[in-house]
Amino acid sequence: MRLSAYSDYSLRVLMQAGLRCPDRVTVDEVAETFGISRHHLVKVVHDLGRSGHLKTHRGVGGGFTLGRPAEAIKVGDIVRLGEETECVIDCTDREERPCRLSPVCPLREVLDEAAAALFAVLDAYTLADLLRPRSKMRATLGI
Amino acid sequence: MRLSAYSDYSLRVLMQAGLRCPDRVTVDEVAETFGISRHHLVKVVHDLGRSGHLKTHRGVGGGFTLGRPAEAIKVGDIVRLGEETECVIDCTDREERPCRLSPVCPLREVLDEAAAALFAVLDAYTLADLLRPRSKMRATLGI
Repeated sequence: MRLSAYSDYSLRVLMQAGLRCPDRVTVDEVAETFGISRHHLVKVVHDLGRSGHLKTHRGVGGGFTLGRPAEAIKVGDIVRLGEETECVIDCTDREERPCRLSPVCPLREVLDEAAAALFAVLDAYTLADLLRPRSKMRATLGI
Repeated sequence: MRLSAYSDYSLRVLMQAGLRCPDRVTVDEVAETFGISRHHLVKVVHDLGRSGHLKTHRGVGGGFTLGRPAEAIKVGDIVRLGEETECVIDCTDREERPCRLSPVCPLREVLDEAAAALFAVLDAYTLADLLRPRSKMRATLGI
């Protein structure tokens, strides 16, 4: 069970924006810092701009900054944005027909309860918590 | 965030074995019931046999039965067998070099805590809990 690459990149983009704050960050800087494809990051930054988590800047230099305070960005919400669904199981077969047991099967409920426990933990943390060792993290990135 | 197909199939194999108990089940029956590729199921059944969760029978008819009581099979353990790792994030880049922030980054710890909460829920359920509406489930499968 892995986070999608999209969630992973979203978290890294926001963390770098938070660490650079109040300065702007560019997609190229994030790509270089984390060894991530620029192509994937463009989509992530665009979407985080639309959802208000980033403020994107046009014109000379461009780049982006956090769209709201790090304390107001829940880790759970970022992961929710990046996962297609909060369900950890898809109760269909190869042809997307529902599983024959679906109407009477308790498995989905158990897995939903487990996923809810995971998101409850993520919701208890904000981006600010991920940036707590700020000076060490900035030093590590050479900021 | 999705269960791997392997975990999903493992759960379905064990559920069908539990529902048929004490009769044997064959890979073909599971494949037909759930519309799953026979090819993938063979590996799953083989591995569940090795881990003692299934007892596989050679000879006429073949097939398999549960290797231990349904009450003794934790859902969390089955999912652990099917996931490559309990970590939900891979802190490396495309070339598998560790993330530059790794030594000082709190993200991994937060995600590990979230994954532990998910597994704690799964560990609280056994295969027997997934087979609770037994007569309805058997009827649905035409057993």
